[in-house]
Amino acid sequence: MKKFASLCFALASTATLADEGMWQPHQLPNIANKLVDAGLELNPNSLTDLTGFPMGAIVSLGGCTASFVSDKGLVASNHHCVYGSVQYNSTEQNNLLKNGFLAKSYNEELPATPGSRIYVTEEITSVTEVIQAALTSDMTGADRYNSIDLTSKSLIAECESDSKYRCRVVNFHGGLEYYLFKQLMIRDVRLVHAPASSIGKYGGDIDNWMWPRHTGDYGFYRAYVGKDGQPADYHEDNVPYEPKHYLKVNKSSVEENDYIMVLGYPGTTNRYRTALEVENQFTWTYPQAKAYREELIDIIHANSAPGSDVRIKYESTLAGLANYAKNYGSMIESYNKGTTLARKKALEIQLKQWINAQPQRQQKYGDALAGLNRLIQQDQQTQARDLILGYMGYSKMLSTAESLYRLSLEKQKPNIERKRGYQERDMAKFEQSMKAVNRRFDAQMDKNILLAMFKHYVQLPPNQRLTSLDKFFGLDKGFNQQQLKDKLAKMYQATKLGELDARLAWMNKSPDAFRNSDDPFIQLAVSTFAERKEIEQASEELSGNIQAYRPKYMAAIIAYFSAQNLPVYADANSTLRVTYGNVKGYSPQDGLLATPFTTLEGILAKDTGESPFDAPKKQLSLISEKHYGEYASKALGSVPVNFLGTLDITGGNSGSPTLNSKAEFVGLVFDGVYESIIGDWDYDPKLNRSIHVDVKYMLWVMEHIDGATNLIEEMDIVE
Amino acid sequence: MKKFASLCFALASTATLADEGMWQPHQLPNIANKLVDAGLELNPNSLTDLTGFPMGAIVSLGGCTASFVSDKGLVASNHHCVYGSVQYNSTEQNNLLKNGFLAKSYNEELPATPGSRIYVTEEITSVTEVIQAALTSDMTGADRYNSIDLTSKSLIAECESDSKYRCRVVNFHGGLEYYLFKQLMIRDVRLVHAPASSIGKYGGDIDNWMWPRHTGDYGFYRAYVGKDGQPADYHEDNVPYEPKHYLKVNKSSVEENDYIMVLGYPGTTNRYRTALEVENQFTWTYPQAKAYREELIDIIHANSAPGSDVRIKYESTLAGLANYAKNYGSMIESYNKGTTLARKKALEIQLKQWINAQPQRQQKYGDALAGLNRLIQQDQQTQARDLILGYMGYSKMLSTAESLYRLSLEKQKPNIERKRGYQERDMAKFEQSMKAVNRRFDAQMDKNILLAMFKHYVQLPPNQRLTSLDKFFGLDKGFNQQQLKDKLAKMYQATKLGELDARLAWMNKSPDAFRNSDDPFIQLAVSTFAERKEIEQASEELSGNIQAYRPKYMAAIIAYFSAQNLPVYADANSTLRVTYGNVKGYSPQDGLLATPFTTLEGILAKDTGESPFDAPKKQLSLISEKHYGEYASKALGSVPVNFLGTLDITGGNSGSPTLNSKAEFVGLVFDGVYESIIGDWDYDPKLNRSIHVDVKYMLWVMEHIDGATNLIEEMDIVE
Repeated sequence: MKKFASLCFALASTATLADEGMWQPHQLPNIANKLVDAGLELNPNSLTDLTGFPMGAIVSLGGCTASFVSDKGLVASNHHCVYGSVQYNSTEQNNLLKNGFLAKSYNEELPATPGSRIYVTEEITSVTEVIQAALTSDMTGADRYNSIDLTSKSLIAECESDSKYRCRVVNFHGGLEYYLFKQLMIRDVRLVHAPASSIGKYGGDIDNWMWPRHTGDYGFYRAYVGKDGQPADYHEDNVPYEPKHYLKVNKSSVEENDYIMVLGYPGTTNRYRTALEVENQFTWTYPQAKAYREELIDIIHANSAPGSDVRIKYESTLAGLANYAKNYGSMIESYNKGTTLARKKALEIQLKQWINAQPQRQQKYGDALAGLNRLIQQDQQTQARDLILGYMGYSKMLSTAESLYRLSLEKQKPNIERKRGYQERDMAKFEQSMKAVNRRFDAQMDKNILLAMFKHYVQLPPNQRLTSLDKFFGLDKGFNQQQLKDKLAKMYQATKLGELDARLAWMNKSPDAFRNSDDPFIQLAVSTFAERKEIEQASEELSGNIQAYRPKYMAAIIAYFSAQNLPVYADANSTLRVTYGNVKGYSPQDGLLATPFTTLEGILAKDTGESPFDAPKKQLSLISEKHYGEYASKALGSVPVNFLGTLDITGGNSGSPTLNSKAEFVGLVFDGVYESIIGDWDYDPKLNRSIHVDVKYMLWVMEHIDGATNLIEEMDIVE
Repeated sequence: MKKFASLCFALASTATLADEGMWQPHQLPNIANKLVDAGLELNPNSLTDLTGFPMGAIVSLGGCTASFVSDKGLVASNHHCVYGSVQYNSTEQNNLLKNGFLAKSYNEELPATPGSRIYVTEEITSVTEVIQAALTSDMTGADRYNSIDLTSKSLIAECESDSKYRCRVVNFHGGLEYYLFKQLMIRDVRLVHAPASSIGKYGGDIDNWMWPRHTGDYGFYRAYVGKDGQPADYHEDNVPYEPKHYLKVNKSSVEENDYIMVLGYPGTTNRYRTALEVENQFTWTYPQAKAYREELIDIIHANSAPGSDVRIKYESTLAGLANYAKNYGSMIESYNKGTTLARKKALEIQLKQWINAQPQRQQKYGDALAGLNRLIQQDQQTQARDLILGYMGYSKMLSTAESLYRLSLEKQKPNIERKRGYQERDMAKFEQSMKAVNRRFDAQMDKNILLAMFKHYVQLPPNQRLTSLDKFFGLDKGFNQQQLKDKLAKMYQATKLGELDARLAWMNKSPDAFRNSDDPFIQLAVSTFAERKEIEQASEELSGNIQAYRPKYMAAIIAYFSAQNLPVYADANSTLRVTYGNVKGYSPQDGLLATPFTTLEGILAKDTGESPFDAPKKQLSLISEKHYGEYASKALGSVPVNFLGTLDITGGNSGSPTLNSKAEFVGLVFDGVYESIIGDWDYDPKLNRSIHVDVKYMLWVMEHIDGATNLIEEMDIVE
């Protein structure tokens, strides 16, 4: 018993306990028994067919997941995933964010925010051999890095030769495997329906990552294609896309303990990092980054009145800063309370024992962990510099000037050799980002931010500083705050980069034009470029070396667990995954239980009439009258609003459909509970809970509040 | 069904649903069936015998309840009830608050804080007829008030002719009944044991009124008497008191749903106030009082650094201010969310219908509610003035001067005719309060407080202002803040009332000495006295009138419920009561359940190492090692710390023993949950929960942390 217990102890942080795991579709046959045991009523093998049911109904919005829920290309996702499009179509006269939006017919549908795309994964091809064919074991790190980069870009270029596709090469297990993802890219996306923000964002930042939750976090797009059925740019003659597969909507929803699964595109996890990385991340990186974020939040608050033009420009920056400050705070809290590091260390000891038990293993994996850790230590030597340089990038003038100069340099090369982000395929997005600056920039604020981050920069030891940067600001003669302030004031006075036309014009200028410019931020970018490039090259050299060691370490991990008949899932990397589990509450704290469902009555109890707890009056009175329509759950005696699941999700899963045992749509996943934020590093079956909006609540609001009967009729609703 | 449903609706706010009710011992035979149904294994009639078991084991500490738990006068109560005595015996060298205290033998026991008493109720006699004999229906209010007052004082004086007793006349149902309480007063009280504050006050103000809870809120006194067995002042020759009855301690404790009861001295409830009173209280009085409290807190914070001498002097004032600011806040919150007022109004309508259904009833009760409400409205006309005058009393100089002058005037009268609080029986306490001023007073702070409250006073309409007060401060010529400031500065400069000797000397001076004094605060008290006396007399006139109407209204209420075979309990009034119910969790919020027990592990999870979450290191390591001794509960797999009950308690119940179905000691009640604070006005069976420290936790800490084995051996522990 003792050995088994200690095995579980180690496993909890990494492998295949119930509900843990973001599985690649092709892995599902390996865990078929578990899926069926958990309650799946489909043949598990059917989930491996990307163009079959149900996988063919799952799409990516790039950053969010979504799904087809009608044969006319109706797409369901989260309110927070369609939020940008609602905002984009809002005017002072017609505030869709506040009032919600419903198109009662196709011609009332509105274009989504520019650049919106719907991606349908059609093919996943292993390209590990192609990538590895160009690698040798004695390459320098930089050569390895560049070789992988170039092969990937070539594979992508080839794949995208048919312009209706968007392709990516993605590494798994730190480079042990590579896959090419080929996605149909639908370019005409339209907004169909979103509830009022007082439903779709109910609880706002206060309830973000929290349970109990009462958020109607759903919205609808529609995919349009040309009359020939092929992806096309927006045109009024375009027609709704007819997907091969779509999800049926089961209005019976689910009950406690029911099987559920989520198919989607989780962004990033770090479940296989070494103890050295984990300890550094939680005791240095997160606390330091949290402090920078909180400082930036304070600066923005102190320099803009609520509701002022400046504050409005920085609201989304603030939201992002606060979101991750809270996120890091939760992770630090969980880490300090929990046993993440201890279990990670225990696993490394057990792995070492297992490796040392056989000479073959020793030869194959013996130096993997130590080699990897040596490189990580090397990386940590410059982490203070790298982090603060990153946060200096919150200055739009600094980051814009650097990007523009880099673009001019990259444009000198053949397209395939350019840095990622500067290829022709990236230009639409690049231009978009140049346009976006004005909505999120105020010169005075930008200066305050840069000045504050500079104060941290000058604390770096001299050998970590950028000589060119110090020289440019006269910091080589010592730090004088007033001097720096004056210099910055002059720079912001003189620069033209705050103007959209100027930025767009710079996108097409030559490196010489930059070198001869009298714009102070362009001058800054030019004068520091060589040194920043050196740092980049050192970082690529290191990355290339890590790309040699991390796959070796992961191969050891996989072999170790395989020896125990335990399959290993890869860390999330924005590719299609499956997670399954059950509807289930948890104990957030000794003496408290989170029950798996919230109900309409909870909205009434939370409501203060003030944002973010200001549900529509109509909704409140319907709840008071217990006007449940056909959507009450018998077990609850009311309409369920949100529910908890044991699913293993992360950012990027937002908008993923929650499916029942027959792969019918029963809700949307939109968040995880506070205690599960550390899940990106360490899944705890006791505390890791996903939060879902219940299909019954969606339908109740659509029918009784918003009158979206046309959509209810369009969907294939079963029970 | 409909009629029954609406009956329940009305009842929930006032009468006899399960678990609601603070019953007088003599009422218990009326609810005998319910007690037995709930699980009581004693003969309910046995609870009516004050000098029998178990009632004879229940004592009052004056403000707190306690109980005998050994035949040598060992008394168990809450840590917060013995806190003052622990503080009193603490020195810088030997900080008992921090370290805890344990006497391993009688001679190590320490005197409790001066004035500590243990009261054993020996007799409760109805004196309604005696009081009423002196009343006529056509008396003025003032005459009625004074008659009741004088009869009461005479009854008390007679009862206290044997100096070992302390007596009180208490009205029930607003004066419908009067009882004389005769209590043996034990004057030699000694501190036996208290855990460290980091156990006894674990969670501090943050966890106050909160669940989940992990507070070891217990402590022990011992009652001493003279060698003759009679109450005596402290003397080293005194011997432990041998009570006729004491409680056995059942170390098995209780499990979910088990029967529990609490015998104790609840302070004040307002369950039978009229809708008019309720609405005014929650929409005017509590919000206004909360605002004054928060302002005072801000003033104290702004004018004293944490840890400074001044701050230390005001810590207990701050705690009191904050405690009730939170309390009022919770009540306002619950009131706004709930249906208290609607149910109160519904009851009044039903009562009116019931009264109007019979001419006899109409004649008897017809004008009760309307008459009472007329008087209440009259009272509300001056409530703004009365409230702010009350808060001005936070100035110690103002209130001390007024009390001292009043004392000199009262002393001119025969003892029996003096105002309560100024009789000979009150002098020890009065002197104590004069002595206490220095520990809680700083002239500068006192001035800031008075100035701030003055700013509210000058907002009163002119006819509500005190002419003499205005004149004294020159406010009759308009409010000039600087002038007032200067005047106050001079007064604080000149007054001697900040000195203990001066205050004590004034206790024995004649009214003329006051009139001739040049102390500015004495002058203020003298010059405003006549007007304050007028206000007092008007208030007594009103009270006397209310004393005619409220009993009538209560008689109607009782008759109404009696007609439905529902007994009515009286509002709490610091007299001995019984409440019974079960161990049970609740849902504090949609989507959350509070489970009925917390466990040791919760301490580990909450602990931050910083007060108030800084459990002793030894405790934390015992918990980590799962060193439960014999105190783990099988159902929980750990040692229970606190548990929830459905009991109907309020302030004054603190320290009450929690008894199982055999009246064995299984814990101590020490708090209610946040959602039950409004319980003083409105018991909600869904949300009203008492919080108890579990006997298993007490014994575990005593045995494993504090080594209090002598006390464990002294008690009669069963299972």
